Amino acid sequence: MNIHSKYIENAVEQLSTLPGIGKKSALRLVLNLLNRDKNEVTRFSNAFIEMMENVKSCSKCHNISDSEICGICSNPAREEGIICVVEDIRDIMAIENTESYKGLYHVLGGVISPIDGIGPSDLNISSLISRIQSENISEIILALNSGMEGDTTNFYLYRKLSEFNGIKITSLSRG
Amino acid sequence: MNIHSKYIENAVEQLSTLPGIGKKSALRLVLNLLNRDKNEVTRFSNAFIEMMENVKSCSKCHNISDSEICGICSNPAREEGIICVVEDIRDIMAIENTESYKGLYHVLGGVISPIDGIGPSDLNISSLISRIQSENISEIILALNSGMEGDTTNFYLYRKLSEFNGIKITSLSRG
Repeated sequence: MNIHSKYIENAVEQLSTLPGIGKKSALRLVLNLLNRDKNEVTRFSNAFIEMMENVKSCSKCHNISDSEICGICSNPAREEGIICVVEDIRDIMAIENTESYKGLYHVLGGVISPIDGIGPSDLNISSLISRIQSENISEIILALNSGMEGDTTNFYLYRKLSEFNGIKITSLSRG
Repeated sequence: MNIHSKYIENAVEQLSTLPGIGKKSALRLVLNLLNRDKNEVTRFSNAFIEMMENVKSCSKCHNISDSEICGICSNPAREEGIICVVEDIRDIMAIENTESYKGLYHVLGGVISPIDGIGPSDLNISSLISRIQSENISEIILALNSGMEGDTTNFYLYRKLSEFNGIKITSLSRG
């Protein structure tokens, strides 16, 4: 690519760090931005900086949140005794969109994956156990995606959580 | 989409203003950014602001440039008597990548398109005519993309430029 501007080259470089965006699409997107009003591009850019400065991880369930405790954990209408364990925040969004689950969540932040060097200690498992010990939990729903890594993590969690008496551990039905 | 953060919602909103990026892909990209280091995201955002502040349109040919006159127009090794007329700067990049054209360019900034309300006066045609009048041009190559709008623009330019004696007007061969 023969771009006669180091500033455009840099913008293309940055956009193509996003997953699924190659140099060619990045250039197309950058030229689209270049055709816009300067204020519009400033708003575009600031959105990401403001996000980094303001978005927190909920200290209870690790969901994204603009405050210390997320909107789900702090909602008194949710059933506090049920925790649905998910891989990442997109799973929360998907389940919330069904509008049929009224319990709480716990975001693991990934699944056990020896190939990627991700072990149990890299996931939010100890905070899940703390919640089980300190909150009045009656049911844990394991809602990890199926597949080798999800299944391994499910199995690991099942064994780990079975140590606690009086808690029902279920999985999402599939197929 | 049920995103529990107005900052993330805003970032998704902004990213999905880019062509070909829907809300769902935008969310995927935003979550990717959210997982990064704050400095990295600042570099990402600043790239677009710096681009808007520094990239100019070449005052001769309307190519993008970090300086008043672009690298092609200011290169003494280029043949100054030949101007290749293109729709936008991506065409310059494509032709430059072939490394077989040594003349200059002129970026129209679009094609005549009555449906989109783009007429000849919205394109960089008067600056092309000024160049023909003031520079020593012997050949104009019309290199607009084929299709109804490109062909209309080609035809319009052909008629307009035929008024000038001693200039050869050619089109790119196709197929």
